[in-house]
This record gives sequence, C-alpha cells and structure tokens, in this order.
Amino acid sequence: MFTLVIGNKNFSPWSLRPWLVLKMLDEPFKEQQIDLYLSDSKARILAANPAGKVPVLVDDKLRVWDSLAICEYLAECFPAAGLWPDDGKLRAVARSIMAEIHSGFAALRHSLSMDISLRQIDYETSPAVESDIARVVSLWEEHRQRHVADGEFLFGRFSIADAFFAPICTCFETYNVKLPPVSQAYVRHILSLPAMQEWYRAARQERQRQA
Amino acid sequence: MFTLVIGNKNFSPWSLRPWLVLKMLDEPFKEQQIDLYLSDSKARILAANPAGKVPVLVDDKLRVWDSLAICEYLAECFPAAGLWPDDGKLRAVARSIMAEIHSGFAALRHSLSMDISLRQIDYETSPAVESDIARVVSLWEEHRQRHVADGEFLFGRFSIADAFFAPICTCFETYNVKLPPVSQAYVRHILSLPAMQEWYRAARQERQRQA
Repeated sequence: MFTLVIGNKNFSPWSLRPWLVLKMLDEPFKEQQIDLYLSDSKARILAANPAGKVPVLVDDKLRVWDSLAICEYLAECFPAAGLWPDDGKLRAVARSIMAEIHSGFAALRHSLSMDISLRQIDYETSPAVESDIARVVSLWEEHRQRHVADGEFLFGRFSIADAFFAPICTCFETYNVKLPPVSQAYVRHILSLPAMQEWYRAARQERQRQA
Repeated sequence: MFTLVIGNKNFSPWSLRPWLVLKMLDEPFKEQQIDLYLSDSKARILAANPAGKVPVLVDDKLRVWDSLAICEYLAECFPAAGLWPDDGKLRAVARSIMAEIHSGFAALRHSLSMDISLRQIDYETSPAVESDIARVVSLWEEHRQRHVADGEFLFGRFSIADAFFAPICTCFETYNVKLPPVSQAYVRHILSLPAMQEWYRAARQERQRQA
C-alpha cells in the first residue's frame, strides 16, 4: 500500500494535489502527516525526503518526491484511470498547465496563500496578483468551453490538471475572488467533490486542535 | 517540423533544456529567438505564448509551453529514444529530480545565474546557496554511482534529467564551483557534448553582437 507523507492540510497546497489524485483513484493509502510549523519539522521532513520538502509518496522501497512527479507516477501506475487526456496533443496542453502552476503564479501564492479554515477574507491586491488571477481564469474559460461537453472537469473527466488547480480553487473561495460564471461553476464543482469536502473537514479539525 | 521559441542563449536556462533534448534526438527543428531584454519583448513573448514565458514548442497548431511539458511531449513523440529510464521506479526518481529543479534551487538560480559568456567569476555565497550546491552534488553522486556502469549520464543513457541539469553545469563552470571528482566528471561530460558546444558558441556570438 502507498504511504503519502503530507504537511498541514490547512496550509499545504502541494500536499493536497497528490492526495486528491489518490482519493479520485479510490486507492487506499496510508497518510503520514508532518506538522510543518514545529521546531523539529525540518529534521522530520529531511528524514522522509532528502530534498527537504513534502509531499513524498512511499511505495515499498521507492520514494517519489514532489507533487508533480508523484502525480505522473500515479498516472503510470493506474493507466486505466486516465489521469491524463487520451489525446496526445490535449495531454501536452494539460501538462503545460500543470508545469505552469508548478513553477509560476508566485504573486497569487504569496497574497492568496492557502488557508482552508478562513472564509471570505480580503487579500492584498497588486497588478501581479490580478494578472495571475486573470491567467487562471483565461485557462479555465478556454479549456472548459473548448473541451467539456457536459463534463465538469477541465478536460472532460478528472485529470491531474484539475488536481493542480484544486488548491487555487480553495484560495479563490477563501479570498472571495470575483469570477465569471464558467470559472465560478468550476470552483464550485471542484470544492463539492467528496474528497475535497473530506480535506476541508480534516483541515478545520487540524486548526481547532492547534488553536 | 517543430519550431522551438527560445530566449537569449546566454541567459535562458529554461530555453537550453528542451533545445538540448531536441539536439540529442537529432531532430531537425526551426529555432525562433526572442531577445528577452528589448522594450517590446513582453509583447513578442505573449504573442508566442499567452503564459508570457519562453520556451514554447510549436507543432503545427499545437503550442506546448514550459520546458518541462515540452520535454515530456518530446519523450512521447520519440519513445524509441528513451528520454526517460525504461524502469518505472527509476523513471519516477528521474521525474522527481526534474520536478525538484523545476520549482526549486532558488538561491542557486539567484546567485549563480546562467551567463555563458563569463568564465571563472566569483559568486555571492550564503548558507542557502551552499545548501543548493550540496543538494545538486548529492543527487549527482548518488545517481551516478548507483545507476551508471560505464555510461556517462545520470541514468546510463541521456535523459531529461540530464537536460534539466545542463544549465546548472554551465553555472558551476562559470562560477568555478569546487566539486568532488564524480560531480566534476559529470559537469565535464555534459559540457563536452557537441550540442552544448554549439550552444556555447551561439551564446558567445549573441553576447558579442549585443556588446
């Protein structure tokens, strides 16, 4: 059975991504959580992953680190689940989106940092933040309108691209970001997934324990 | 034929990565260069890629953006070239390394930024920079010693992981970073590739034109 080492559910967008993929696969896995805000956190993370970051997927003797590589590994382990679009060109676009999120959106990440326990709070805006939000919206509007008939995900069925957007959806809700209808519907759809509801409940309990 | 849109060869590590993969594939492609330091650069990049960054791979009507997604697309287009290790677990490790480079090593990137035309200059060190250098070296020592018999690359034959390390190799040479023997030999091997020599020549000509 896989073990997924993650950080705080309330604060760790990178932990949420592969966790959501495992849940959407309906694959049982052990969860090992490291509180990222304790004095010995760094040592505990380094023990789990020499790269010094969570999440890490442990599969017997193999350790796969970084959310992106974990998601790619899961796509290879479960080919029938179709975690990437079947069409090679669409798959390339979905991977481009994943990669853009993986290394980009620094302003969004900074000003609208993930904090599941909060609701409808203000954020500090700037041209960089608004540009990041506009870019996310343009990706959603383009890909949902182009590729989705009655489906609810970006490329029809659930894909790794949706998993990469899931933390951004939580931030758009937390910070009450005004969105056009197609994007608003996408955020609602992602946040209503049973797996996301489960993550929210756990994140809020985590915060209450820490309060 | 593919078109690869890249930035300045002297300064753009992200452009070098997919360019090197295409060269190692021996695949003819058109190169379109955008000088990243002109007043209209931003508009020209946005015209090539709405994400506002280079590199971009153009394949007929398809645009694949971000070096990581381009390399994955090329791995799928040319399966016989084996741009990833054949073994699934090694492939997961190679992808973890790629992902770590893609979003990490910020201190290294800042203090030892790629500048092909310079040689043996000093860099501003800090604990974060030394930690980044030590992490690169530990990855090289571990994977070269574990997986390579007589081969010269990290996982035996050339892989995308090597392409991701190639700009870091140029920086280690530029800034004269002291390395243990296995790592030094790896840097020498990467920099002696004919494709890397071609990139160096073009980068220096580019700098002379701009001087």
